Amino acid sequence: MRVMDFSVIGDLDAVSELIERAKKGRVIALYFIGSTKTSTIPGLSIAGATPELTLYTPACDVEYLVYGETLSSDAIPVTPEGIPTPAIITRSCLSLCQIPYVVVDSGSAVEPKVPHARLPSRAVGEAINAGRALPYEVAKALYEEARALARMLRGADVYLLGESIPGGTTTTLGILSALGYDAWGRVSSTSPTNPHRLKERVVREGLERSGLRVDEAKRDPLKAVSALGDPVHVSMAGFLQGALEGGAKVVLAGGTQMASVLAIAKHMDVGLEGVVIATTRWITSDASSDISALVRSIDPSVPIVSMNLDFSGSPYEGLRYYERGYVKEGVGAGGTAFIVHVLAGKGVEEIEESIYKEYERLMRVRRSKHDSARLG
Amino acid sequence: MRVMDFSVIGDLDAVSELIERAKKGRVIALYFIGSTKTSTIPGLSIAGATPELTLYTPACDVEYLVYGETLSSDAIPVTPEGIPTPAIITRSCLSLCQIPYVVVDSGSAVEPKVPHARLPSRAVGEAINAGRALPYEVAKALYEEARALARMLRGADVYLLGESIPGGTTTTLGILSALGYDAWGRVSSTSPTNPHRLKERVVREGLERSGLRVDEAKRDPLKAVSALGDPVHVSMAGFLQGALEGGAKVVLAGGTQMASVLAIAKHMDVGLEGVVIATTRWITSDASSDISALVRSIDPSVPIVSMNLDFSGSPYEGLRYYERGYVKEGVGAGGTAFIVHVLAGKGVEEIEESIYKEYERLMRVRRSKHDSARLG
Repeated sequence: MRVMDFSVIGDLDAVSELIERAKKGRVIALYFIGSTKTSTIPGLSIAGATPELTLYTPACDVEYLVYGETLSSDAIPVTPEGIPTPAIITRSCLSLCQIPYVVVDSGSAVEPKVPHARLPSRAVGEAINAGRALPYEVAKALYEEARALARMLRGADVYLLGESIPGGTTTTLGILSALGYDAWGRVSSTSPTNPHRLKERVVREGLERSGLRVDEAKRDPLKAVSALGDPVHVSMAGFLQGALEGGAKVVLAGGTQMASVLAIAKHMDVGLEGVVIATTRWITSDASSDISALVRSIDPSVPIVSMNLDFSGSPYEGLRYYERGYVKEGVGAGGTAFIVHVLAGKGVEEIEESIYKEYERLMRVRRSKHDSARLG
Repeated sequence: MRVMDFSVIGDLDAVSELIERAKKGRVIALYFIGSTKTSTIPGLSIAGATPELTLYTPACDVEYLVYGETLSSDAIPVTPEGIPTPAIITRSCLSLCQIPYVVVDSGSAVEPKVPHARLPSRAVGEAINAGRALPYEVAKALYEEARALARMLRGADVYLLGESIPGGTTTTLGILSALGYDAWGRVSSTSPTNPHRLKERVVREGLERSGLRVDEAKRDPLKAVSALGDPVHVSMAGFLQGALEGGAKVVLAGGTQMASVLAIAKHMDVGLEGVVIATTRWITSDASSDISALVRSIDPSVPIVSMNLDFSGSPYEGLRYYERGYVKEGVGAGGTAFIVHVLAGKGVEEIEESIYKEYERLMRVRRSKHDSARLG
């Protein structure tokens, strides 16, 4: 028996206020995608069958989200072990509730074959161990373009921002470290064995090569992004500012990566009242990372909502892997589940049921692909 | 003294129903842009300083719409005579009312430097006198992608669809003629001297070269688009279908071009209940075109709303050109004015005042550019 659909770390009143606003019914979800060559450093990201294939993951994630199948790759978005992309959670949730949503390309290596909003300065980030992730002008332009997008999509009460960027926890470590936060060993991983030492080596190398001083970065966090960031988190921060300026509230739908969005916005002098992080239990209960400490060090007033999704009762081995520390979060999974819970009154068990059905459908697709490959 | 803010041709009840739905407050505006090389045929379009420059117009229109200045061109969006783009009306209206809006690129020759939704199959249309405007697969994909975009942006009560495509009245003539409608001499023009004979020659040439039979086109209107169409109207028709399927109402915000959107959708077997065309008085009172006859021949149940904007009292010569048959409509000008009137209660005089202020600002920008060019 389950006690609660979600748990809250931090300011419960702020979460209640957000829920009240969301219930007014104007929620828009945005899923930001982008790539950083950081994900191609061997051993860093398992969000793709090989390091190079991680560059396809953002496009495939949103193609699957929108159409239920990937178009930029033949593969279904499931590992050989049967572990599905977290977009399965997002897709299942969106099928339960009529939330309008937009895919935002801030620099995916592969252009997604679904209608998507494009930031004109979109760019793939370089591997951050070189300390030159993005030209400064690009980081600045992405921030401002995403802020403009928020002004264009004005009028909602709540914006939910999710992400898909393999290597994103490492760039988060990079951004936070450049800004002087102690994030070592605290960022999450899609793998149960979090490669903290490798991440630290990559980031320390980047910090050294960039020559960026913490006080400089704090005065202008876009310098931290330019040195050790990526296209996604800076765009989310720009959108965050635009949305808050318009009087809306914002759900940052993601795990430890959301700390870098908070940090960029904070040092851009954006007041973070009205922001809530919403993620999964797999993140908040993860022993190999510490989202709570990260957020507290940036702005303790920002609460963290944790959706108590639990796949241990799943009939599918592939989903039970989530209970062993695989995947955990991504493509706004936890936050989307939270908003769907709030708007459509769906409990976690109903949400899980719909995920199981979607997983079953995916497996049928895989079997029929397998069969036609054998026959062909 | 003015009697009415707008006039209605056709079913008044349908307009009242749309107004009631719009007042529920969830309206999303979309401005579709695209190019057809048809606009580079000399003498056909004056939506650009030279035929080649018409390829820049869609990008410049939406850049000006969003940022108040063009980025893809140095020029301000005003002719040497001082005649401004119709986007001045749209921009002024959007400043009076918090409607969320999206720019949709279905095939602009120049990628706009503003955040915009991109249809993956976006393509510039060929000059239609060759009878091969777009590959059939592209026409089909644009229709389906725009329909998918409507599903993603679900949940609104009313969608307003505007356009910017130089040469769009000629491609409209092409699409309608391919589908067997008598549209000769009935499509509008941005010029007071409507080049009907040239348009007819271009379309007849295209019809002949395409070899497309009317009965074939009626069975599959995407063949008409492929032969004599363009990327914009087919995308608007696809979005229209998606929006109606979601239970929303749709304002087609444009002049005679909207007839081709209606015709494509009708022959795709889309029921057109819930659709209203909204445009300007300059279109409905134009002696050189006949929107009413066009719409009646496609579906007489679709009403036409005409915003009674009148620039004859404008202090600016550049705007008074509109009263002499220049420009008339574009970038959803009339429809956006209508929706802002409905939602924000702004009368045409208030709307005109805001346009005059915006024009004044544009002229200040022009003077300062002129001064700095002289000094530089």
